Amino acid sequence: MTQPSRSQYSNGYATFRVDFFMRKLLSVWLISCLGLAVCASTRAQEKSVANTQRIEQRIMDLSRFGKDSLGRGYRVAFTKGDIEARAWFIGLMKDAGLQVRVDEAGNIIGRREGTMPGLKPIAFGSHIDMVPDGGNYDGCVGSIGGLEVMELLKSKGMTTRHPLELIIFSNEEGGTIGSMAMAGNLAAAGLTQISQSGMTMAEGIRAIGGDPGQLDKAVRKKGDLTAYLELHIEQGGILEQEKLQIGVVEGIVGIVHWEVTVEGFANHAGTTPMDMRKDALLAASKLVVAVNEVVTGVDGRQVGTIGKISVQPGAYNVIPGKVTMGLEIRDLSYEKIGLLFKDIEKRAASIAAASGVQIRFRRDPNESKPAMADKTMQSLIMQAAKNLGYSHRFMPSGAGHDAQEIAHIAPVAMIFIPSIGGISHSPKEFSTPADMARGVEVLWQTIIAMDRR
Amino acid sequence: MTQPSRSQYSNGYATFRVDFFMRKLLSVWLISCLGLAVCASTRAQEKSVANTQRIEQRIMDLSRFGKDSLGRGYRVAFTKGDIEARAWFIGLMKDAGLQVRVDEAGNIIGRREGTMPGLKPIAFGSHIDMVPDGGNYDGCVGSIGGLEVMELLKSKGMTTRHPLELIIFSNEEGGTIGSMAMAGNLAAAGLTQISQSGMTMAEGIRAIGGDPGQLDKAVRKKGDLTAYLELHIEQGGILEQEKLQIGVVEGIVGIVHWEVTVEGFANHAGTTPMDMRKDALLAASKLVVAVNEVVTGVDGRQVGTIGKISVQPGAYNVIPGKVTMGLEIRDLSYEKIGLLFKDIEKRAASIAAASGVQIRFRRDPNESKPAMADKTMQSLIMQAAKNLGYSHRFMPSGAGHDAQEIAHIAPVAMIFIPSIGGISHSPKEFSTPADMARGVEVLWQTIIAMDRR
Repeated sequence: MTQPSRSQYSNGYATFRVDFFMRKLLSVWLISCLGLAVCASTRAQEKSVANTQRIEQRIMDLSRFGKDSLGRGYRVAFTKGDIEARAWFIGLMKDAGLQVRVDEAGNIIGRREGTMPGLKPIAFGSHIDMVPDGGNYDGCVGSIGGLEVMELLKSKGMTTRHPLELIIFSNEEGGTIGSMAMAGNLAAAGLTQISQSGMTMAEGIRAIGGDPGQLDKAVRKKGDLTAYLELHIEQGGILEQEKLQIGVVEGIVGIVHWEVTVEGFANHAGTTPMDMRKDALLAASKLVVAVNEVVTGVDGRQVGTIGKISVQPGAYNVIPGKVTMGLEIRDLSYEKIGLLFKDIEKRAASIAAASGVQIRFRRDPNESKPAMADKTMQSLIMQAAKNLGYSHRFMPSGAGHDAQEIAHIAPVAMIFIPSIGGISHSPKEFSTPADMARGVEVLWQTIIAMDRR
Repeated sequence: MTQPSRSQYSNGYATFRVDFFMRKLLSVWLISCLGLAVCASTRAQEKSVANTQRIEQRIMDLSRFGKDSLGRGYRVAFTKGDIEARAWFIGLMKDAGLQVRVDEAGNIIGRREGTMPGLKPIAFGSHIDMVPDGGNYDGCVGSIGGLEVMELLKSKGMTTRHPLELIIFSNEEGGTIGSMAMAGNLAAAGLTQISQSGMTMAEGIRAIGGDPGQLDKAVRKKGDLTAYLELHIEQGGILEQEKLQIGVVEGIVGIVHWEVTVEGFANHAGTTPMDMRKDALLAASKLVVAVNEVVTGVDGRQVGTIGKISVQPGAYNVIPGKVTMGLEIRDLSYEKIGLLFKDIEKRAASIAAASGVQIRFRRDPNESKPAMADKTMQSLIMQAAKNLGYSHRFMPSGAGHDAQEIAHIAPVAMIFIPSIGGISHSPKEFSTPADMARGVEVLWQTIIAMDRR
């Protein structure tokens, strides 16, 4: 599918005008066609909206907030860069006509009232904090894209039936803290944790205008929101590889971590013959290969990673006595994660027996359960992409997002746009202005469609 | 072969007296037997010597010098424990009638003059410094064993033809510094290196009574020593596993180190599908397994170890982008080390191509070339073990030793005794008093045999 150019957007307006003129001239037998034409014109009006240049400019503006001493991106939650960027963003929200408040968890909520009393808000948004040395698109696209929707409503003088809330969640990268608090799941122990900023979560929340002593006031209960919708970069390379423009997220994967310990016997690497060794690193290496074989050995989009490893004592001339590794498995199915792990355990047992080492797994209790996207919302996103002529596919989100937390209290869905090179959490993170604009168009159409339901 | 008990040693003396008495009584047809009996009696005198209790007591006494704050062994070269242990050892040497001096490299040399002018000294010894948290036998057995030989000569009132030198080399564990200096191979750059003690080598040598500015005076040239002989614990488990008492060392292996870098691409472990990864740790793990396969895939006693590994960025949720490892290969044949490495390089190239990563090897220029033990001395050691009825085998030394440095200037040989469990460089390092006594007997007989040649 080819990319629509900006001239195609303009053609939308032209089509609308021709349709209007024709409506006055055409005979009754055209009435059925007229209905279709009205639909098309409505779609056209709702399509040709996103101000690509404004979106791109705001991405650049936001990227200037938060640098470390080496000039690398460091808009870590609760730090000076984060606080200044939030103030700047609140200013933009107010300019777009929103009523802005910061809730007790530090989430920024920009509200636009609807026309129908009693309807609960449709929420959308993302976050503007980043990982150290991170990129300019993760979170920012959804935040600036959500703001763009509000700008367009204002410029068009349109009012939705539902109230709309643009939410910029606090400290997403540090553990989806703001959304977890909004869903009522941030435990007291979580507040005492040290965040990347060096402050405790409680201190950090206070630093950005929240009130960690009254987090209960930030809680939204089931039914308080009609839905939550998040536009985000894919962070993987699937859309780019398949030359697709929009990802319709089926759900956010569950994540389970295990600390793996391989216990061999440290000994002199010169005097211990090969057949008398209990080399923990050799056994660990066989396990790394086995994990990859197990995870890739069954159909599906599950991922399994050993991302960290350390060896003791760790010298050229000493046979490794102990290896500690970090194993992570992610999938949309919690059951599948369990089955994959069972297979890994079996492989580990054979490796341990053959190598004369012990292998132990300690499961991290802080696991993320999979969060499925609302089926109706998925259909609306797909329909929006179709209407706009954007190529698309259904896919899981391999990364955690605020939507995962909000899924506890409301139907959620996510829209992905391509990440160039599949790179994220890196200064090399990039999405094209055209892709961002397409994402905003789909977000806009989905919000409008939901509002009309 | 069963272990000779202390009563068997005493029986040696009894045999000697009976033989002597019989010589006076027996007729001419017994003269041929007499010759054998004299040989046996000489062997018996030279055999039944080592004071097992004294050796064991001195091992215990020496172990009290040098502890870290946690009470672990810390007789690291140049530290307080090393300096105090050296003073104690010098006292024992003097008590044993030796003329003691500390050379400019900090080596302690205890000399006993011989009867034949012009003969160059037969040297023997080892070292008394240890690695941090090390054991009580590595180096100590050869040092105390060498002293025991001097004690026995004194107690028997025997004088050898050659002068004898008991040498306690300085800072063996920090890179065979004392023996390297004696062989004239300690470069000026080596003196500026920081030793484990925190001092530079130069400062450390000064701290133990040497003079780093006049190292040339410590140098012994080719021909200055008749030979150098070192008794040592095996540090491996071969002798124990094969239930053998003495190892006749064929040579000291060469050691080559490579820093291995595996460069993949760090990316999000949730959003990057399995087939789009360039996982540096997965490729590195395959290489660890391949190294083991290459090294164990050919006959011989070569060893190959990957003892250290680090991964960047090193988090549960990031696909490893870069792995750095340390590869070591040891063998008696320098050529074989080269051939093994060539095979490893080939395997690495296939792994790199299949994994989409780059693998680079950087060879450490500070390599140890193999040092072969003198064939005649090996025969004398084997003959001594045979005479004493000790089971034995020829074997390489997988560890580096001072003998390796002295091989540049004199014929060298080494005698190994079993290490229980094959453990060394550990507080668990242990050799039985009976094994130590056997080692001293073999050392004694070999020195006597060399002296008579």
